[in-house]
Amino acid sequence: MTQVFKDPQALRAAIRSNQFNANTSGQAPGFVQCNLAILPKDWAMEFLQFCQKNPKPCPLISVSDTPGNPMMDGAGQGIDIRTDLPRYRIWRKGELVEEVADISQHWRDDLVTFLIGCSFSFEEALVADGLKIRNVSENKNVPMYNTHIACAPAGRFHGNMVVSMRPFVPADAIRMIQICSRFPSVHGAPVHFGEPSDIGIKHIHQPDYGDAVTIKPGEVPVFTACGVTPQAAIMQAKPDFCITHSPGCMLVTDIPNSKLAIL
Amino acid sequence: MTQVFKDPQALRAAIRSNQFNANTSGQAPGFVQCNLAILPKDWAMEFLQFCQKNPKPCPLISVSDTPGNPMMDGAGQGIDIRTDLPRYRIWRKGELVEEVADISQHWRDDLVTFLIGCSFSFEEALVADGLKIRNVSENKNVPMYNTHIACAPAGRFHGNMVVSMRPFVPADAIRMIQICSRFPSVHGAPVHFGEPSDIGIKHIHQPDYGDAVTIKPGEVPVFTACGVTPQAAIMQAKPDFCITHSPGCMLVTDIPNSKLAIL
Repeated sequence: MTQVFKDPQALRAAIRSNQFNANTSGQAPGFVQCNLAILPKDWAMEFLQFCQKNPKPCPLISVSDTPGNPMMDGAGQGIDIRTDLPRYRIWRKGELVEEVADISQHWRDDLVTFLIGCSFSFEEALVADGLKIRNVSENKNVPMYNTHIACAPAGRFHGNMVVSMRPFVPADAIRMIQICSRFPSVHGAPVHFGEPSDIGIKHIHQPDYGDAVTIKPGEVPVFTACGVTPQAAIMQAKPDFCITHSPGCMLVTDIPNSKLAIL
Repeated sequence: MTQVFKDPQALRAAIRSNQFNANTSGQAPGFVQCNLAILPKDWAMEFLQFCQKNPKPCPLISVSDTPGNPMMDGAGQGIDIRTDLPRYRIWRKGELVEEVADISQHWRDDLVTFLIGCSFSFEEALVADGLKIRNVSENKNVPMYNTHIACAPAGRFHGNMVVSMRPFVPADAIRMIQICSRFPSVHGAPVHFGEPSDIGIKHIHQPDYGDAVTIKPGEVPVFTACGVTPQAAIMQAKPDFCITHSPGCMLVTDIPNSKLAIL
């Protein structure tokens, strides 16, 4: 059984020294975990614009100060983005070429780091309010779907929104909408509920990413913009070089989830 | 007396044809007005990062698609940023060199446009809720102050936050905090209330920008991050070339103010 670290700094130290290399789900409860995208400088401005134009699927938590600087102190004490995630994916021209535990040897002076909010933060707020989250109770990855909702394009980045889905009875869906509205930097309020085909989803029981979950009688599927969207846009743009986290292996920051609530 | 346009497109057409060249305050009620900053491409990435790191004083409404493209259709039908504001300021190396009604002759292929939210939007929401805004009732510009609150630096951009001040009795201040929290893209919740010296303001009756307003017995001054902050950061960074709006002469968009409310 995986050890649960309470302190994000202790967790990152264990990751850095290769004593922890698992999924970060459930680790350092209460602290923000982030999706990672690292791009060369000549792609960074357009990607930053893409995120700015599409804040629901691409909520930026932090961007590196200067190209080539691997330290992300704004997100947590002493974070070195080259070593502090359990697993990374290296991409060339949109193709996955390697999965590694450390990107020091891949680091370059022109790389810009983007930290993007993740649903773990709002799921924690929902659970704290007493809501049951089906993917948690069924111990699965949240189901995610491609939609026909177009993102606002920015330069070479474009594509449709990817959404995650959680089923709720209507009263709980209403409460979920209220709670998520407080957290615009981790995807904010949902984008749709009810009929999946309205947003271009054909098979609700066959998600494009993650696992299918049970939808019980009386429940409606609630769809939230998902952090897979920026990855999909990057894969479509096919930059020469790119680094992302491996699915589930996020950057764990020192930022309390509650700090992301705007009210 | 100045004509009041109800329709933002009609107002912009009048501005474009030099039939309207006044302050845009009170024009096209219900629609978002924006601060303008135009920077060369080699300064744009750092400025975008500065805005991303300082969302309260620098809330981005829109950024141009590609350097050199003067059309800002995302903010309103057919907006040509070169002609659709009443008055612009041209800056070189941080010095104001010219004030013009049209920047077509100054336009360059490397210019990137930033539209930044403005307090007019949340003031409208406060008035709609029945709150009285002192700078409105006294027909003055809102008082603004330099503070010692440091912005998060980004590349060559740094500086302290500039705040605007509106006095309220505590019950109204609480309601104002609630309403402004719904509008993160027009400066969001206030940053301080009460003792001005706590944030480095020495003379509450001598604002650094705008006009002094009356603070009545029983009222507390409430301080909100202000869109002058990014201009101050630009002036400090002294880019070779920069264009801003003239004070009070904003870009009037087709975006309804209510669309900026996140809940």
